[in-house]
Amino acid sequence: MLNGEQLFLGIDGGGTKCKARLETYSGELLGEGLSGPANPAQNASLTCQSITEASQMAIANAGLPVEAIAEVHAALGLAGVNIPKYLQLMQQWQHPFKNCLVTTDLHIACLGAHGGQEGAILITGTGSSAFASVADEHTAIGGHGFPLGDKGSGAWLGWRALNLVLESLDQLRPTASLVATICEQLECTDADQIVSKSLHFAPIDYAKLAPLVIQSAKHGDVMAVEIMQEGARYLQSVLGRLITMSPQRISMIGGLSSAWMGWFPDPITRQLQSPLCSPEYGAVALARKHFKEVVHA
Amino acid sequence: MLNGEQLFLGIDGGGTKCKARLETYSGELLGEGLSGPANPAQNASLTCQSITEASQMAIANAGLPVEAIAEVHAALGLAGVNIPKYLQLMQQWQHPFKNCLVTTDLHIACLGAHGGQEGAILITGTGSSAFASVADEHTAIGGHGFPLGDKGSGAWLGWRALNLVLESLDQLRPTASLVATICEQLECTDADQIVSKSLHFAPIDYAKLAPLVIQSAKHGDVMAVEIMQEGARYLQSVLGRLITMSPQRISMIGGLSSAWMGWFPDPITRQLQSPLCSPEYGAVALARKHFKEVVHA
Repeated sequence: MLNGEQLFLGIDGGGTKCKARLETYSGELLGEGLSGPANPAQNASLTCQSITEASQMAIANAGLPVEAIAEVHAALGLAGVNIPKYLQLMQQWQHPFKNCLVTTDLHIACLGAHGGQEGAILITGTGSSAFASVADEHTAIGGHGFPLGDKGSGAWLGWRALNLVLESLDQLRPTASLVATICEQLECTDADQIVSKSLHFAPIDYAKLAPLVIQSAKHGDVMAVEIMQEGARYLQSVLGRLITMSPQRISMIGGLSSAWMGWFPDPITRQLQSPLCSPEYGAVALARKHFKEVVHA
Repeated sequence: MLNGEQLFLGIDGGGTKCKARLETYSGELLGEGLSGPANPAQNASLTCQSITEASQMAIANAGLPVEAIAEVHAALGLAGVNIPKYLQLMQQWQHPFKNCLVTTDLHIACLGAHGGQEGAILITGTGSSAFASVADEHTAIGGHGFPLGDKGSGAWLGWRALNLVLESLDQLRPTASLVATICEQLECTDADQIVSKSLHFAPIDYAKLAPLVIQSAKHGDVMAVEIMQEGARYLQSVLGRLITMSPQRISMIGGLSSAWMGWFPDPITRQLQSPLCSPEYGAVALARKHFKEVVHA
């Protein structure tokens, strides 16, 4: 097998896509793969299928024969496995690998952000959550999903905007430029139309409105500024808790991280460091760390 | 037909049940009926079926022959018809009545609360909304449904409680007695269990937690008090807007109205008057008012 070198595979699986990264023990990138949804809380059999597909693609991309999958030491970082029953489900999977360990998408994202080392992360994208790995102890904060949690996420920004726009159309608060901006984007002229249009909105649909809020706040719109300040207060409290845990590094990742950065006071931003690598890189690092005894035995 | 007396029917249709009330022109109660769900935004054909069933029951209850339905002047007050396409759908119904008009559940609730006269109402139950009828002009406020609107409703109280309980379990805010109360009620011991349990919560499921919030706030729990104050601020702004419209009377109705009353300042509560009659009473009053020319022609 590749001149006797062991193969390590990292999987980053989420609600929309699954990424695979194949490396040697020394960290040489051999191949990458990409496939469909891999969140077992949404669809467990599709998750297994997506993981297998992305892995096969990475193996083919490395120029290795398809049977090589049976030699692979894999670490799967998956959304949804913070819920015990889905973790159990994935741990019971008759996987095609030599070895396989399952952990959360947060854990591998954190490892990735800190180049395979311990640290803490705050993620703001469509959802929001935080994770810390300090002295082998893992702590997950937030990320409870919309509409219960995920404050400060894109979904939350869009939802809060619709919330305040409706209050404004109900004449319960002053109007603002964000009201016209949101109505125009949704092609609506009154509250009932907004309600009809958003009746079956998923988090991703709310999140599509987030750039309008961020943009309007930059231009000083009072309603947008109020929303950003409310979100920033929550995210600051999360960062505050991470800081008290004294991690080696703290990074913000996700599509909204740069948008939020300007809303925190200097003492907070000074504690933040740039993320180093991707979640799938973190997953490979975990596979290597976890299976190295097995490999060298 | 009943010694030549005309028949007037009021229908109060919502997401769980449909009530019918049959009266003479002079206001004598002849019979009542009760059937299943009647919200056309949820199920239009079931709505028509429920309305027919409740009407037939009221006619039978009045000791009248089944054919009497063809002589009835009906007013239907229905949830969901604030959305134009569902109003249109119900207006196109090949109904079994002599005459039929369709209006919102809010409109008939308002008429009912003020004994068939104009006025304004604030409803807080599983949902929340407000309505004013002043000088033949109708205004609906709020009631945009959970999670976009319905602030101050039972669903909102329960959702906000879970929201803050999760923040407390994440150590982002101090704990409070409400945290243990909610965890005990849901038979959960950590955040992930709460998230799993509430993953598919409908508004009615959140609303089941509302009494715990109201009770805890009465006992001075800081978290519950914070939630009640936040809800009360919103409801006060709604009442404030109703007051500016100078309606003849303002009433609070719905299962949570007495719970909220204690959270408003005296200048607000002094403006409130007790509701007089039921929504189906309001619907009959509307049928009589609307069809009296037709009848006497």
